[in-house]
Amino acid sequence: MAAQGTTHTVAELAGRFGLGLRGDGALVVRGVSTLARAQADQLSFLANPRYRAQLADSDAGVVVMREADADGYAGTALVAADPYAAFAKLAALFEQRPAFTPGVHPSAVIDPAAHVDAGASVGPFVSIGPRSVVEAGATIGAGCAIGEDCVVGAGCEIGANVTLVRRVRLGRRVLIHPGAVLGADGFGLSMDAGRWLKVPQLGGVVVGDDCEIGANTTIDRGALEDTVLGEDVRLDNQIQIGHNARIGAHTAMAGCSAVAGSAVIGRYCLIGGGAGVLGHLELCDRVVVTAMSLVTHSIREPGEYSSGTPLMDNRSWRRSAARFKQLDALARRTRAADKDPQ
Amino acid sequence: MAAQGTTHTVAELAGRFGLGLRGDGALVVRGVSTLARAQADQLSFLANPRYRAQLADSDAGVVVMREADADGYAGTALVAADPYAAFAKLAALFEQRPAFTPGVHPSAVIDPAAHVDAGASVGPFVSIGPRSVVEAGATIGAGCAIGEDCVVGAGCEIGANVTLVRRVRLGRRVLIHPGAVLGADGFGLSMDAGRWLKVPQLGGVVVGDDCEIGANTTIDRGALEDTVLGEDVRLDNQIQIGHNARIGAHTAMAGCSAVAGSAVIGRYCLIGGGAGVLGHLELCDRVVVTAMSLVTHSIREPGEYSSGTPLMDNRSWRRSAARFKQLDALARRTRAADKDPQ
Amino acid sequence: MAAQGTTHTVAELAGRFGLGLRGDGALVVRGVSTLARAQADQLSFLANPRYRAQLADSDAGVVVMREADADGYAGTALVAADPYAAFAKLAALFEQRPAFTPGVHPSAVIDPAAHVDAGASVGPFVSIGPRSVVEAGATIGAGCAIGEDCVVGAGCEIGANVTLVRRVRLGRRVLIHPGAVLGADGFGLSMDAGRWLKVPQLGGVVVGDDCEIGANTTIDRGALEDTVLGEDVRLDNQIQIGHNARIGAHTAMAGCSAVAGSAVIGRYCLIGGGAGVLGHLELCDRVVVTAMSLVTHSIREPGEYSSGTPLMDNRSWRRSAARFKQLDALARRTRAADKDPQ
Repeated sequence: MAAQGTTHTVAELAGRFGLGLRGDGALVVRGVSTLARAQADQLSFLANPRYRAQLADSDAGVVVMREADADGYAGTALVAADPYAAFAKLAALFEQRPAFTPGVHPSAVIDPAAHVDAGASVGPFVSIGPRSVVEAGATIGAGCAIGEDCVVGAGCEIGANVTLVRRVRLGRRVLIHPGAVLGADGFGLSMDAGRWLKVPQLGGVVVGDDCEIGANTTIDRGALEDTVLGEDVRLDNQIQIGHNARIGAHTAMAGCSAVAGSAVIGRYCLIGGGAGVLGHLELCDRVVVTAMSLVTHSIREPGEYSSGTPLMDNRSWRRSAARFKQLDALARRTRAADKDPQ
Repeated sequence: MAAQGTTHTVAELAGRFGLGLRGDGALVVRGVSTLARAQADQLSFLANPRYRAQLADSDAGVVVMREADADGYAGTALVAADPYAAFAKLAALFEQRPAFTPGVHPSAVIDPAAHVDAGASVGPFVSIGPRSVVEAGATIGAGCAIGEDCVVGAGCEIGANVTLVRRVRLGRRVLIHPGAVLGADGFGLSMDAGRWLKVPQLGGVVVGDDCEIGANTTIDRGALEDTVLGEDVRLDNQIQIGHNARIGAHTAMAGCSAVAGSAVIGRYCLIGGGAGVLGHLELCDRVVVTAMSLVTHSIREPGEYSSGTPLMDNRSWRRSAARFKQLDALARRTRAADKDPQ
Repeated sequence: MAAQGTTHTVAELAGRFGLGLRGDGALVVRGVSTLARAQADQLSFLANPRYRAQLADSDAGVVVMREADADGYAGTALVAADPYAAFAKLAALFEQRPAFTPGVHPSAVIDPAAHVDAGASVGPFVSIGPRSVVEAGATIGAGCAIGEDCVVGAGCEIGANVTLVRRVRLGRRVLIHPGAVLGADGFGLSMDAGRWLKVPQLGGVVVGDDCEIGANTTIDRGALEDTVLGEDVRLDNQIQIGHNARIGAHTAMAGCSAVAGSAVIGRYCLIGGGAGVLGHLELCDRVVVTAMSLVTHSIREPGEYSSGTPLMDNRSWRRSAARFKQLDALARRTRAADKDPQ
């Protein structure tokens, strides 16, 4: 899958990214692969210790690794403090990306009151509504529907079938994967005489520079103010962000996690897959929430937080689960037995 | 984000919605905002007590609030028994909605055996299949795919990139947000000689008047009968409704919740975010399920139900989680210590 | 919803599928329905014992059932070892499917370097990128976006608004429901000097013959190797499959479940609704994970696995949940009371 014809010597790669070199700097690299599959003209990496056993058997021409691993390695190595980050940069050299061709596909329907920069690329079956702006170097994939009052910043890349409903303002270099929906009505309801009354959602969505938004992820627009993602926020697929939520810069959320309305998440947080944050809570910076945990109160201290129970075979789990229902009685009985008057 | 030029005096607003008036009825309101951001010509509201402290510092020209709050307030107030519901109605006056323009976009592909009312609006890149009907006042957003035998009732509003697969019948004024899929095959499988056999899904989906369906939500059609939403059901984003499920009128479900096949949910239920209801269960009216709970048995009594464990710091959680696995042994030991022969 | 005009006698049906016949073989069947709603010219089935009480009152002309049930039944019966599987086959005779008409809709945008077989059907507003292939008998629904280097195998059926981003290779007869996204970038990130660095996703997605993929489900492409589904894998709606995951043949996953990156799931596994599997784990064949459980370690033994706590009324749950936080202290106190030195 590497770009055809791209080649670099190991010495070139070491120099370009400031990596240590052990072994044959003249070796030519034509692509990247895993330790298990790499061939003699390919580069691989060792970052996760669980794959260390594969190193000895790998046919990779060159492997990016930590110094400690390189010391015992007979083959050619590029030495990095963070081999995964180094590999990310190296692999990008070999990535084959579709060519960027500016221009608007003739099938696209652009409102006369919209502005699409001549240096942007707009695919087939795209619609763009009034007062929306697409800046230079931005790509809009096939079938995207962009409503009114949106901004797609310079260098953004919007995948196919994405919808920006209204008042969605993307910074620069935002990457949105297919099927995502930004700027739909927040879920604002009030019960009135036995029927739901819809609360108008007058705000928008603001997405900072360099954010990434996964496939089929949804980010509602705010009720009165905006829903806001800081810069470099990374959202995986099928994430739900409620209206008026604010996600701090550099926070990453794994697939299927969700943040309810008006919650405020700090910077550099990591939200595990399937985890949820209830509405109106605040999480400080550098909070880690493990997968499928539910955050039910605000968090003031950085650190790792969890809820749930461990996986068990179903028969054992049924016994523990039945006892969970009796926990209060069990605790009271234990205290009584202790003669502990707490 | 308010509609340009919309103005009302406070006295007009009080009269129109039957609200109490304290202070300056001649004051002109040009928009709505939060307590923290509202300016002197804007209206705000105080419903959630956690924002009461912001009232004293607010620059809002007029604030909707309960009588008890108004008694100690020096500024202009509109008094309502339910300030949030009152605000919902007031804010709607200031909402700027895209203009409704009837007609079918020339790019749309309408089957000759479909019927689109002359008073409906069909956007670009829409396809409508045989025997489907779009009634007066309905809007179909860009890129929607409507299959065969569907009905989009009068005044419905269908966002962009929505798919109605087949046999989906929407009542009046149904609002569907972008990316939703209604009427896909239910997940009906039977294992037959080591391979899955697909069970035909011959039913449809029926959605009552005034329902709202969130972005990227999915509602499968029934196997033999229909999947049914009663009137005024409100579904947030990324909800999954299995085949043959029935959701009672006025029930609201928060984001990422799910109802498995053939489950029956009562009226006026509230299903929390990420919660799940297993198949073939019945929930009576007015059941509240808290976020990320799993409903594993039918519920016959109104009330609030929960599962899961509270959020803890990860180190403490690990200790509790390890003990959860030992709970049955722990309970037996406690009983033995009690000499309790249960 | 049965195909108009389709009729079969009970004797024909018995002969065609090798079923036992009790009663009137000359009876003409014109459709299928549930026990509760079937009429005298319709066929129904009894598989789930919870519906046995409906049998006596059913007006169904003929009912598919187990021999044990047929022994006490006075009406006409078709006898099957697995009535649900038999019904699936019978119902398919009466299913009305949209006609397959080969050809490319004039609005579709096909890259000159793509190949669409003359026996394939491509709907309106479809785009197909360079080097992609659509084989004979495949159907591509309205609004699908197929990028570069994809293969849609013979007889595949792709619903509306599906996106295949790049390097997605589907086997034969794969069924994909609307809104699914296959081949988006895996969620590969490395923190580098305080900012996220994107790790190139150079792999693809390979889907085996006869797989079914639900509405709005997402399957990311691999980082270096491919994300792989074996043959006859069945995924319900809104499932998330991370990059490099491998799902074994005949495994079925219920709605809203998720498999994180590089996890390997065996054959004939059943993953319950909303369940999650963490990254880099391995599950052997024939593992059952109950709904909303989280798999946090590899599973080497077939069987059923669970996590979570049972549903309780909220007041009782709060008491148990509070005690969960004290579990370690409670266990230590119990052991002390026992004078148990463990």
